[in-house]
Amino acid sequence: MRGRGGIAASRKLQRWWRGCPSTAISDDFFVSGRDGRRMSAAPLASALNNVVAGGEFSNRSQMFHLVARYKGTNPLMKLRDYQSFRHDSSQRTLGLKLRSFGSASIKVPRSTTFSKINTEDICHFRAILGEKNAIQDEDRLSAANSDWMKKYRGSSQLLLTPGSTEEVSQILQYCDSRQIAVVPQGGNTSLVGGSVPVHDEVVINISRMNKIISFDPVSGILVCDSGCILENIGVFLANEGFIMPLDLGAKGSCQIGGNVSTNAGGLRFLRYGSLHGNILGLEVVLANGSVIDMLSTLRKDNTGYDLKQLFIGSEGTLGIITKVSVLTPPLLASTNLVFLGCRDYLSCQKLLMEGRKALGEIISAFEFMDCASMEMVLNHLEGVRNPFSSSMYDFYVLIETTGSDESSDKLKLETFLGKSMEKGLIDDGVIAQDMSQTLSFWRLREGITEALVKAGAVYKYDLSIPIQKLYDIVEAMRTRLGHSAKVLGYGHLGDSNLHLNISTAAYDDEVLSKIEPFVYEWTAANRGSISAEHGLGVMKADKIYYSKTPEAVNLMAAVKRLLDPKGILNPYKVLPSSLVLPN
Amino acid sequence: MRGRGGIAASRKLQRWWRGCPSTAISDDFFVSGRDGRRMSAAPLASALNNVVAGGEFSNRSQMFHLVARYKGTNPLMKLRDYQSFRHDSSQRTLGLKLRSFGSASIKVPRSTTFSKINTEDICHFRAILGEKNAIQDEDRLSAANSDWMKKYRGSSQLLLTPGSTEEVSQILQYCDSRQIAVVPQGGNTSLVGGSVPVHDEVVINISRMNKIISFDPVSGILVCDSGCILENIGVFLANEGFIMPLDLGAKGSCQIGGNVSTNAGGLRFLRYGSLHGNILGLEVVLANGSVIDMLSTLRKDNTGYDLKQLFIGSEGTLGIITKVSVLTPPLLASTNLVFLGCRDYLSCQKLLMEGRKALGEIISAFEFMDCASMEMVLNHLEGVRNPFSSSMYDFYVLIETTGSDESSDKLKLETFLGKSMEKGLIDDGVIAQDMSQTLSFWRLREGITEALVKAGAVYKYDLSIPIQKLYDIVEAMRTRLGHSAKVLGYGHLGDSNLHLNISTAAYDDEVLSKIEPFVYEWTAANRGSISAEHGLGVMKADKIYYSKTPEAVNLMAAVKRLLDPKGILNPYKVLPSSLVLPN
Repeated sequence: MRGRGGIAASRKLQRWWRGCPSTAISDDFFVSGRDGRRMSAAPLASALNNVVAGGEFSNRSQMFHLVARYKGTNPLMKLRDYQSFRHDSSQRTLGLKLRSFGSASIKVPRSTTFSKINTEDICHFRAILGEKNAIQDEDRLSAANSDWMKKYRGSSQLLLTPGSTEEVSQILQYCDSRQIAVVPQGGNTSLVGGSVPVHDEVVINISRMNKIISFDPVSGILVCDSGCILENIGVFLANEGFIMPLDLGAKGSCQIGGNVSTNAGGLRFLRYGSLHGNILGLEVVLANGSVIDMLSTLRKDNTGYDLKQLFIGSEGTLGIITKVSVLTPPLLASTNLVFLGCRDYLSCQKLLMEGRKALGEIISAFEFMDCASMEMVLNHLEGVRNPFSSSMYDFYVLIETTGSDESSDKLKLETFLGKSMEKGLIDDGVIAQDMSQTLSFWRLREGITEALVKAGAVYKYDLSIPIQKLYDIVEAMRTRLGHSAKVLGYGHLGDSNLHLNISTAAYDDEVLSKIEPFVYEWTAANRGSISAEHGLGVMKADKIYYSKTPEAVNLMAAVKRLLDPKGILNPYKVLPSSLVLPN
Repeated sequence: MRGRGGIAASRKLQRWWRGCPSTAISDDFFVSGRDGRRMSAAPLASALNNVVAGGEFSNRSQMFHLVARYKGTNPLMKLRDYQSFRHDSSQRTLGLKLRSFGSASIKVPRSTTFSKINTEDICHFRAILGEKNAIQDEDRLSAANSDWMKKYRGSSQLLLTPGSTEEVSQILQYCDSRQIAVVPQGGNTSLVGGSVPVHDEVVINISRMNKIISFDPVSGILVCDSGCILENIGVFLANEGFIMPLDLGAKGSCQIGGNVSTNAGGLRFLRYGSLHGNILGLEVVLANGSVIDMLSTLRKDNTGYDLKQLFIGSEGTLGIITKVSVLTPPLLASTNLVFLGCRDYLSCQKLLMEGRKALGEIISAFEFMDCASMEMVLNHLEGVRNPFSSSMYDFYVLIETTGSDESSDKLKLETFLGKSMEKGLIDDGVIAQDMSQTLSFWRLREGITEALVKAGAVYKYDLSIPIQKLYDIVEAMRTRLGHSAKVLGYGHLGDSNLHLNISTAAYDDEVLSKIEPFVYEWTAANRGSISAEHGLGVMKADKIYYSKTPEAVNLMAAVKRLLDPKGILNPYKVLPSSLVLPN
């Protein structure tokens, strides 16, 4: 079925594609609705092009479907990172299934402290930015108002796209004086509703600020605008023989400013550590418009408080990051990947401990997934296969090494694997022999999210738990939920980061009530974190006490009030509103 | 000559030795004065025993000498880290020469906002801590009042040695209410006067809080009291198969709380990066006594602002760190060290760039020293020798690798060296064949400080400069000073950290006026940092604008006023007093 909405959206998409030189999609790409529901082109357009895209979404329905027919380069590689899809190559058709949770619609009330924007405000912004960068177009606003999961939706009436730090400064100075709330937005890939308005906040999207400013091949220090897309930076660096110390599934859309604002973790965390160690400098605009230049390009600088650290992970509530300086490691020549089957969680733990020693300097990823995760992938994804034929194990571990010399790295890995097998820590294992096998192993681990969405409703939790107890919550949840749900445990074991995912046929409040607040309480009781890498956003702002003491939260609120006394920056996020906002 | 002061000091030293079980010095150790000047036993006692020690120092003289005769185990190994000495083994005599700069006596005036302590205050502290931990003993106060360089000296009348977080909290709560200024002190190894009182601040020394609290051998996460000595932590970890991500010359005295408070850099920075990335959690007591528990033991935790970062590098001006959680890397089996001769600075730079790629994952140190530094060491230190016999090169580079497999590491290193020689980046090189040779190579690099002090007066600058321009300041300084001084350049090239040292026969204001403010202005003009790793302390508090913008400094001051409204924590340090203190 192809309805009117589909054709209208198709024309819009055509316009976006043309405006976006990086896309390989030809201009007769079009989109059609399915199941008689209104459809949205926004997530697809965002995923493919990283442009702010329009479209509609009915938030009365829990689920909706979108079919996108395409022509030209197959967009699957990009889409894979973002959402579940069904692909029919004979018809060149993509089917996307997105979810919307009822719970997301329970909103914190709008603070009356904020002004509503009026015509005069819009005139002012147009004077600063020019007509085309103070956007009221319905489609673009619609895209800016909703996250890619379609879980959160605001009602902003204005999207601003500044092109320079000075413009960001002028916008904020005005908003602060008029008490107009704003939400900073980059690639809009937040998983916790951090990058979309909750109510009518003005959206400030920094995508236009996307230049590499400088790169020093001796020190590996890169300086760039905060709107640079992570993948683009990676491509630039690869040409110079370097890599970003950060890699994420969302790299094709997410921007470095957002990565820094959310202290993104991702796949290279085990090797290169936190952004708190890798970010050397920032330029930030405060709520009142003042520009703080902390854009150091030095590895070491002990002159006063390291203020930039405050903005790393503060999710845009303390300032808008406009420029970033980052230390990048050299690109190394040799990568190995091994997929292992283990009999129990204790073996995985021991393997990690031994691996950190034996492979110390070359280990670059240590991921795990349980049997339920493997079954989910094998049952719901096309084209994947069990590396161990029909044998199933209770746990699977992926170890990646990256080093400067292929033969010595391989020797180290093989020696380590041999010893671990002797010790009974590994039941079976396969070393990827080529790029195709490497990709197929990663597909098993990275495809879990996609498989889960295909299987039905999914409740996702991103937990940091001391490693010995990390898997206990999975087992506790299984006991708690019985046959009503499938409970999966997988994640970045090397970082003690568990992705606890609960799969049911359909969204069910009763299941949710069995999960929450239990999952938060359990995590708190075990001194874990209820958000390892996703942040708090609007989803968990009022749950911060599960991971932080009242004294620490009060101090955070005091810092927020100091830097943003009127609370205009990304309100309702990170901290309970009662601490930082008037009614 | 052996005067009265010597005998008195000798008795004091005897008491200190007895109280300190770790020393191997027998109890008839004694100290005598030289050159008719008053002498101090404090630095020697501190260096040997890491106890708070007494002694006198005449700050009218620019220089003073101290001779310490010893019996028992040769204390040289420990002394080497700390100061210049002359050792006459036939007489079992140590001669120590310490310096005092006239400039250090130019003090910021005492703020009248602070109360002077009275008998009631002392009674109160005794009630909290017990008699023996509220110390007024002259010798112990004298040691607590002065830094090991004898460059800075306060006039505190009270030394408090709390044994728990709760006691620190009670002390600060009282001091805040009474507006009594305090200086937090650990191993007192600051190079910028950060750890001693400027006037009569009460010293809070946390050395008694020195327990390892927990260690998890799976994740490598250590939790300990902030008073743990860095070297002791290292010994503990080595037994567990791990190392600290931090190593310093002062490791035998400095404490982890001070290391974190000053964001210490050191020798492993190149490999393991900044403490901002390695410190996972802190427990901190704020100025008003409230305890902020941020003692996470998680690699990832994105729940709210990462407040602990504020305290890393704030030099005790925002809170007193009482507990630390740190991620420690595994101890690896294989270490190699190579000493290289290079023809010019550009070759050193290129070598670094190539080395980062070829040795990427095993490189653990990349140090450099110029010809002037080498000559200084060869001319002034006993028992050192030029690895290249009589050949001299303009530059020398030390590269250390650390990895998990000896043969593959060695192969990588040799391949890299071979290629670099072919490219003409290296003129000559020696790979250390055993531990003795390894130590002798390190002695050349680490002995520079000692050689400089033996040579006369020395003006020391710790600069961070973009690597291409790093050596320009050395050459500019040579041109500027002509024959009036020797200018040395050496340091952590891998971190762009230059130690610029200027050596003259005696301290001379005219020389100083040619160096300062030129060195700061040049560094600022080249977007460098006037303090790479030493911090600002009292020495450079008013020089912060050379490396930070007024907006950033104002924001720092606002944070200071928020966390410590009465300014009682480590006053006169880090920030210009006018910004944070009433008169």
